[in-house]
Amino acid sequence: MRGVRKVAVLGSTGSIGQQALDVIRTYPRRLQVIGLAAGENLGLLKEQIAEFSPEMFYCSARLDFSYDGQVSSMESIASHPEVDVVIIATSGKVGLSPLLAAIRAGKAIALANKEALVTAGDIVMAEAKRYRAQILPIDSEHSAIWQCLRGEKSKPRRLFLTASGGPFYHYAQSQLSQVTVEQALRHPTWRMGKKVTIDSATLLNKGLEAIEAHWLFGISFDNMDILIHPQSIIHSMVEFQDGSIKAQLSPPDMRLPIEYALSYPERLHNSKSPRLDLTKIRSLTFEPVDQDRFPCLRLALHAGRLGGTYPAVLCAADEIAVELFLQERLPFTGIAGIIEKVLEQHHNVLRPSLEEILAADGWAREMALRVARKEAVR
Amino acid sequence: MRGVRKVAVLGSTGSIGQQALDVIRTYPRRLQVIGLAAGENLGLLKEQIAEFSPEMFYCSARLDFSYDGQVSSMESIASHPEVDVVIIATSGKVGLSPLLAAIRAGKAIALANKEALVTAGDIVMAEAKRYRAQILPIDSEHSAIWQCLRGEKSKPRRLFLTASGGPFYHYAQSQLSQVTVEQALRHPTWRMGKKVTIDSATLLNKGLEAIEAHWLFGISFDNMDILIHPQSIIHSMVEFQDGSIKAQLSPPDMRLPIEYALSYPERLHNSKSPRLDLTKIRSLTFEPVDQDRFPCLRLALHAGRLGGTYPAVLCAADEIAVELFLQERLPFTGIAGIIEKVLEQHHNVLRPSLEEILAADGWAREMALRVARKEAVR
Repeated sequence: MRGVRKVAVLGSTGSIGQQALDVIRTYPRRLQVIGLAAGENLGLLKEQIAEFSPEMFYCSARLDFSYDGQVSSMESIASHPEVDVVIIATSGKVGLSPLLAAIRAGKAIALANKEALVTAGDIVMAEAKRYRAQILPIDSEHSAIWQCLRGEKSKPRRLFLTASGGPFYHYAQSQLSQVTVEQALRHPTWRMGKKVTIDSATLLNKGLEAIEAHWLFGISFDNMDILIHPQSIIHSMVEFQDGSIKAQLSPPDMRLPIEYALSYPERLHNSKSPRLDLTKIRSLTFEPVDQDRFPCLRLALHAGRLGGTYPAVLCAADEIAVELFLQERLPFTGIAGIIEKVLEQHHNVLRPSLEEILAADGWAREMALRVARKEAVR
Repeated sequence: MRGVRKVAVLGSTGSIGQQALDVIRTYPRRLQVIGLAAGENLGLLKEQIAEFSPEMFYCSARLDFSYDGQVSSMESIASHPEVDVVIIATSGKVGLSPLLAAIRAGKAIALANKEALVTAGDIVMAEAKRYRAQILPIDSEHSAIWQCLRGEKSKPRRLFLTASGGPFYHYAQSQLSQVTVEQALRHPTWRMGKKVTIDSATLLNKGLEAIEAHWLFGISFDNMDILIHPQSIIHSMVEFQDGSIKAQLSPPDMRLPIEYALSYPERLHNSKSPRLDLTKIRSLTFEPVDQDRFPCLRLALHAGRLGGTYPAVLCAADEIAVELFLQERLPFTGIAGIIEKVLEQHHNVLRPSLEEILAADGWAREMALRVARKEAVR
């Protein structure tokens, strides 16, 4: 890594965006913010602009301050000639269009947005190949797999995605139905945004990660195992053709995979990174995952295997259902029910275009609301 | 890996040698035995010759059978032009000379012999660099580190050597002094030769491995941690500059690191390799090592840090002490005492020549026997 790498952070006021800026702040001689993009959090965006003086920024809300360099779209930042790396840390489907713009500009892309790969993995990977854009995963699980695959020539035999299990992994079915929003937002090991914290508690998130891994690493769902590993120290593992397994370990801190993606293929010297002391942790434990008590995971893997527009429908229905749960209009265990009913009603489109994916997304949102109304949501 | 790789197995009737032949047997289209060398076990050598029809073989004992291709030294096999890979699986200092012959012939060398690197690591690594000979570790710990370093560009920050702790790790001092030969030869996780099984029980073996790792990977003793990990599933770990750690895992079976060294940089497709199921193992545990109850480890690390001829003295004194223990002439806890007294008497030679190393070895053996006699060995 020579000189300074110029980084655009799309979704800079979200949880991943803030942690990305924290990483950039640590290495002022290696990383520099060139662009920022945010949604509604004007106060924080203003602070970030003041601190990092980006050449350009985008905001979807109306500004209450003025600063030079405002641009009219995230795409124009993602494809700007001076940008070396684009961090896509927006959540939801708004990440897809700037991701494609960055790909078509041949950028290195540090990808935190889940929905883009889950709903349009086929298109994203084909375009990345065509434009030789590097997609560098930021999620701890995919970063772990990517690190384990480093330098290996042969295709892996199996991936093990680890999951903390979230706060309710040992709850009985009857307890799960009583889970409150406040409880669900308290994740035992990871600091994350609200939506992904709920998706972690239902384990739907792990299913989305399996779909992402399928696209990123070209591995079939039959060759992926999900392991409950409550300590969140082993972030995932790869089994090779000869039976040897590599694992990546670190204290649960998103800044490490972010830093790895931003500095790749180098590893930056980080004396402040928390040191893992396994003699203090003493035990790393593993359990099989129970898809009966966590039906969201089963549904996500099912949608992933079916492919086509099913993953888009899964994401859209989940977004509505999680929103209803956060509004306390749906019990925790009602999330899976909504997703399941919407998936059941869907007519799949195989190898869909972007338009067909967006159409499926729209259909699924409407259907999810309709199902929720029928179920006499509070 | 194109075509068939021709392998010479030096020490073919020992534990590692037999397991190496087992690996070669599994891949007849990729690996072929071209040379064998053994010591006293004529019966087994005869069987191996009958099965593998090597072009050449060496035996230090007088033959009771006749077969073409007998050569007069291990060195002539190690440096033979047709040999692609030399497995050095002889134990003790007899491995050093054929190792140097293989190095000077620029061979790929799968190294299982500990003493060569421990006693003459400086010379071995300098010669390997000079003759561009690849040294491929076969020990599970060093293979794990080597696998974790694969594809990484920057020097690691720390190595974690794991140790099962042997059969007596939770014994009190008073119990340790009562340990019988039979108990000491029963290792909980690994199948190995007698000498290394006793060295595992005293933890001296882990100290030798630290010295080997120091030479193989250029890591100082300050940047090596030893972790007791009774399940022997994580075979070692590497911490990088950014704080990320990689580990290599597999069921404890020496055939995997042997196969990895013989097929490197490929990984062979092994459908028969035992599959690791962490949901059955459930828990991987880690404890700090107690150098007070296992003084052999402390002595070995001390000798490693001092360098020069100290490691040769350590190995020689240990060989005598273990032999006395196996003959039931010394208690288990007496092994460390002999080593410590011999080390205390030694005058170090820094950057020793091979002759000086061999002289130190001879001196240490004599001194060890003298110390043992004084201690009124049974």
